[in-house]
Amino acid sequence: MSLNTFGHLFRVTTWGESHGPALGATVDGCPPGVAVSEAMLQHWLDRRKPGQSKYTTQRKEPDAVRILSGVYEGVTTGTPIQLMIENTDQRSKDYGDIAEKFRPGHADITYWQKYGIRDPRGGGRSSARETAARVAAGGIAREALKALTPGVKITGYMVQMGQLRADRDRFDMAEVERNPFWSPDASAAAIWAEHLDELRKSGNSVGAVVEVVASGVPAGLGAPIYGKLDTDLAAAMMSINAVKGVEIGAGMAAAELTGVENADEMFPGRGGPVYSSNHAGGILGGISTGQDVVVRFAVKPTSSILTPRKTITRGGEAAEIITKGRHDPCVGIRAVPVGEAMMACVILDHLLLDRGQTGGVRGPIGAR
Amino acid sequence: MSLNTFGHLFRVTTWGESHGPALGATVDGCPPGVAVSEAMLQHWLDRRKPGQSKYTTQRKEPDAVRILSGVYEGVTTGTPIQLMIENTDQRSKDYGDIAEKFRPGHADITYWQKYGIRDPRGGGRSSARETAARVAAGGIAREALKALTPGVKITGYMVQMGQLRADRDRFDMAEVERNPFWSPDASAAAIWAEHLDELRKSGNSVGAVVEVVASGVPAGLGAPIYGKLDTDLAAAMMSINAVKGVEIGAGMAAAELTGVENADEMFPGRGGPVYSSNHAGGILGGISTGQDVVVRFAVKPTSSILTPRKTITRGGEAAEIITKGRHDPCVGIRAVPVGEAMMACVILDHLLLDRGQTGGVRGPIGAR
Amino acid sequence: MSLNTFGHLFRVTTWGESHGPALGATVDGCPPGVAVSEAMLQHWLDRRKPGQSKYTTQRKEPDAVRILSGVYEGVTTGTPIQLMIENTDQRSKDYGDIAEKFRPGHADITYWQKYGIRDPRGGGRSSARETAARVAAGGIAREALKALTPGVKITGYMVQMGQLRADRDRFDMAEVERNPFWSPDASAAAIWAEHLDELRKSGNSVGAVVEVVASGVPAGLGAPIYGKLDTDLAAAMMSINAVKGVEIGAGMAAAELTGVENADEMFPGRGGPVYSSNHAGGILGGISTGQDVVVRFAVKPTSSILTPRKTITRGGEAAEIITKGRHDPCVGIRAVPVGEAMMACVILDHLLLDRGQTGGVRGPIGAR
Amino acid sequence: MSLNTFGHLFRVTTWGESHGPALGATVDGCPPGVAVSEAMLQHWLDRRKPGQSKYTTQRKEPDAVRILSGVYEGVTTGTPIQLMIENTDQRSKDYGDIAEKFRPGHADITYWQKYGIRDPRGGGRSSARETAARVAAGGIAREALKALTPGVKITGYMVQMGQLRADRDRFDMAEVERNPFWSPDASAAAIWAEHLDELRKSGNSVGAVVEVVASGVPAGLGAPIYGKLDTDLAAAMMSINAVKGVEIGAGMAAAELTGVENADEMFPGRGGPVYSSNHAGGILGGISTGQDVVVRFAVKPTSSILTPRKTITRGGEAAEIITKGRHDPCVGIRAVPVGEAMMACVILDHLLLDRGQTGGVRGPIGAR
Repeated sequence: MSLNTFGHLFRVTTWGESHGPALGATVDGCPPGVAVSEAMLQHWLDRRKPGQSKYTTQRKEPDAVRILSGVYEGVTTGTPIQLMIENTDQRSKDYGDIAEKFRPGHADITYWQKYGIRDPRGGGRSSARETAARVAAGGIAREALKALTPGVKITGYMVQMGQLRADRDRFDMAEVERNPFWSPDASAAAIWAEHLDELRKSGNSVGAVVEVVASGVPAGLGAPIYGKLDTDLAAAMMSINAVKGVEIGAGMAAAELTGVENADEMFPGRGGPVYSSNHAGGILGGISTGQDVVVRFAVKPTSSILTPRKTITRGGEAAEIITKGRHDPCVGIRAVPVGEAMMACVILDHLLLDRGQTGGVRGPIGAR
Repeated sequence: MSLNTFGHLFRVTTWGESHGPALGATVDGCPPGVAVSEAMLQHWLDRRKPGQSKYTTQRKEPDAVRILSGVYEGVTTGTPIQLMIENTDQRSKDYGDIAEKFRPGHADITYWQKYGIRDPRGGGRSSARETAARVAAGGIAREALKALTPGVKITGYMVQMGQLRADRDRFDMAEVERNPFWSPDASAAAIWAEHLDELRKSGNSVGAVVEVVASGVPAGLGAPIYGKLDTDLAAAMMSINAVKGVEIGAGMAAAELTGVENADEMFPGRGGPVYSSNHAGGILGGISTGQDVVVRFAVKPTSSILTPRKTITRGGEAAEIITKGRHDPCVGIRAVPVGEAMMACVILDHLLLDRGQTGGVRGPIGAR
Repeated sequence: MSLNTFGHLFRVTTWGESHGPALGATVDGCPPGVAVSEAMLQHWLDRRKPGQSKYTTQRKEPDAVRILSGVYEGVTTGTPIQLMIENTDQRSKDYGDIAEKFRPGHADITYWQKYGIRDPRGGGRSSARETAARVAAGGIAREALKALTPGVKITGYMVQMGQLRADRDRFDMAEVERNPFWSPDASAAAIWAEHLDELRKSGNSVGAVVEVVASGVPAGLGAPIYGKLDTDLAAAMMSINAVKGVEIGAGMAAAELTGVENADEMFPGRGGPVYSSNHAGGILGGISTGQDVVVRFAVKPTSSILTPRKTITRGGEAAEIITKGRHDPCVGIRAVPVGEAMMACVILDHLLLDRGQTGGVRGPIGAR
Repeated sequence: MSLNTFGHLFRVTTWGESHGPALGATVDGCPPGVAVSEAMLQHWLDRRKPGQSKYTTQRKEPDAVRILSGVYEGVTTGTPIQLMIENTDQRSKDYGDIAEKFRPGHADITYWQKYGIRDPRGGGRSSARETAARVAAGGIAREALKALTPGVKITGYMVQMGQLRADRDRFDMAEVERNPFWSPDASAAAIWAEHLDELRKSGNSVGAVVEVVASGVPAGLGAPIYGKLDTDLAAAMMSINAVKGVEIGAGMAAAELTGVENADEMFPGRGGPVYSSNHAGGILGGISTGQDVVVRFAVKPTSSILTPRKTITRGGEAAEIITKGRHDPCVGIRAVPVGEAMMACVILDHLLLDRGQTGGVRGPIGAR
């Protein structure tokens, strides 16, 4: 990852500010011959789009993506794909106050400290609006994965809002698309709805934990020691706005286990090993095992709240700020499609990397 | 990060296997004029060295580092620094069994699946022995930091072993160097000692959480959106063997907070803002705030245990394995100096990156 | 350089095809605080624009550049700058024939062989139209250089057309902007004009040599052994369409010199050494000396000619092709502003790299 | 290329100084399963080794390479390969004078200006001794190429010494290994021998042109627009010490051709097109055509000569210097195996890159 670019062979560079004329992603290194259309990408963008429910910001952003290059007659050509999303709803008046005061929890002060200049309109480059570009790029990655390894399936969902955890015993993946929280636990969704309503009315916000699972990932993706699959996933998820923690498999809870408990035992199975458990999250030594790749990340509560907070001005004076405007009370919700997009990009990138170095041939287990 | 290299401008490439003739690190991009000696680096290596207490592996590895290039008359020249550590204790007989069976929790199976070949002696490239090279490279980074920004101080310590957490109210940083667990809470150290003794005797192992803090880091290090300071820290820590989760500041617990609680309020102070709290872990929008940079990571329990576990052979047959040898019952302990080294490398790298792009000049807050 | 990106810290990624909706460049890593406007960039684009004289293609491409991000209130913010040029003149009818036949000297066949798909309209991604994006990015680099090291001046000119060489004894840099060939030798320009008229009328084309000089470049830019200034310049120039050779200083003719002749002797001067000559082209050991940085490159003759040439079809059949359309008879002419742009980008990139690693401090020569 | 590293997927980082304890290369990203031994690499190193004839330096450097990692039981494992060459002949007394005076044509002054410190012993990092590490790495690349695409053959030879050109009509590749100049023209070799003897006796030196050809390279290697095969070859060759110009195919002479002359016409052939000529040097639009890949580079005359030259001291005083020691009178000779090594590394790297992005599948020409 290098400033605004991520990926080794499938490289995504995003650009654009919240309130500039447009934002987008330059996707380089995509395999040729992949069927891609604006409609396919729009499908994923619409899942992230604001205003889908009363639990997300009520801004009107159509987030219509245009493909400006790299696709010819509906198929990728192997040259860079430019994805552009024009900004249409630029109510700058909402943001007048924040040009002078630094909002706690936002990048206002650090951008100022680093660059000596910042675009204060809607957070400029640090706005979560940038994630629309990732989702579009992730749409490309999904189509390429479909073409290269049809079995890969990527599913994101919310497993926790504030202190309220979803119950894994009630998980039903069919529920994920049926509630505004991408919750596989329908009853948790109902409780979260109530909780979030209250918080929003009181001018507050709340954090969340999102889990993203990739199934059908072939064994052998990743590499020692720094180009690990888990290293890149950790970076990918941590790069999403407001994320403060990333876990693979058992995650932070791995610290609480003993070696006996943590061992994912192996048994002979058809076409490879069968595992008793998946504490590893599908990754050993930085390389995929063929089990589900499981990543979780924590999203902090929205920093833009109506409750007044203490801050300072650019002139160094004490001040108080409330952040009006149309903000998500729980940005974790809209982080779900973003996490999926990052997973798709990382898996595809490592698929290409592995094919480059090893040709994708695998060491055999069992007789052939 | 690209296979065996990390860093943008201060780039570290490690090489070597557990039981090969040597291992080491190639450090490229170090600023010139930094005083460095083998003795300075040895200081840090000795902290990581096995056999320091009965709680770590009893292998005898002197881990003596040699500087083969890039330093002339005791000073870095700006050219690549080669750090080599010869392997002296190569009791390969300990590892005979594992050439045929895949050890659960180890990279044995994934290396085999990816490459179709693996060096089974001591885990080969996937051995935690590789971290010695990082610690040596981190020693270079520390000296460079000292030369460039004398105020930076990096401290790592263990905050949790298994389910036993250290108590922050009892933290005394002077204690860290006084117990074999790098614990700032002396009474936790005593409890952990007992707990670990029991586990080891029963042929078991346990996980841990390590925290690393960098204080005195100037505001302005990092960059949007993928070259973030927290992105690189997450990758750096996740790249350490056995790490399954990484947190910045409040970390996963950020999900449990409300926006009101999570806001680190700002007040006017001398030479910049003073913060009421540090949930952000010193990073906003991927850029350092000037507060302490706080990272935590979970280390899974050692996978090499004396309790038999089910596995399969390379031929695909069911088998059982116990991993004899001289293994750390809690690899988290020796991960402390490794985490410090990674922090030092990342901070230095971002210092150079920032100086490259912005010249290190800062946007002023308050009157000039 | 990695597929469609060049640069280390000042990174430029270009995208777009000749006949797609638009093309452009994503510029990442630009220092903040640099005054930049669309008009400033347009100045450079207009120099490269087709139809400036009868010696270049008569296509009508306004090449109007838009800045979509990274600039706020006329100043760069340090975030990625998106430069977009919409394609307005898309006479696809001119290119119908070439979908089936591979044009000799063009990338038609190699794109097909590599990707199994190609955009045949105007050469698609391989069209020299891509260089417009570089020129726009080079405009940003020039403004950044002006802000950081005001003394740098970059001048490109043509020194040879076909076998006709300009005479260095007649060089007058003021002439460069006065003739359609960017020739510092006015009489050569007159001869070239006649020569090119004849070639064009006979359905032929011709090659050229372009020289680009950067004066005022501080000593110390570049690095051993692969990140050399001359390495990056060679790559930058070779990446321009139709370039087949690159020279630094004495270039290929260095082979003909003896060591005695080739030595650029040094004498004490104010503020550093004075050199007797500049065979080195301003670069020793990959690092700038402070003398003029001198690069030359050869541009092959335009491959699109009206004289029929033998080729094959996609079906593998023998065929003959003439390439109609509005083509430059000597693409070397319009390569001059492109070479200047690449020089600007490389010098700026190395300025940032050097500042990153060394802080831009120099080893003193003479008393201080 | 980034400071001391080159390559995208097959990445080589060299380290070490002329008179330090050792130098070497870290080779990362090599495909697994390639048979490699120290003896195989030694074969290539011996070709570059000093003292092979009276026309090269008489220094005694055995240049014995050791493989410290990445190879297990004679086969690459896919992990980083460390190649180390110990320095045994360190007659530092030869170099005493040059600590104070800057040698014209050497990197003495620029290293000093950039870093404020330099290792003066034998040129330190800027010594051509570094190329031994490249040759070793190139040996790995050759074995990997042999395993992946058995048909590739790489041959380097000298085509010009000073103003004396070899005659292509007399080329016989069998001669290359039979004379000390790697000349395919036996009679040119005889003339060069005499010429060089004279120059050496007069305390002078001379430049040369080296050509390297890779045959059997599959079509489709390379990529637009900056990751071109010719871009990377230009950078690779320009990164070799003393190189001042690089040509692909017709090279600088392409400027002298008309479009009619320059067109490499295509005719139907078995398994693809047959070309009438190869002005393109096997590369169109940055991508290989399947023809021979042809690169040439000019090596300047050795700067270390016995004829006194004017220079200045570190203190800024005027001085005169003669460079004693055992220097090659024509460094171009020993650059031949180095150029071959760089070609091997670049071709392999692009083979892996292409396999990564496209899977190595080709667009068909003609019926299947």
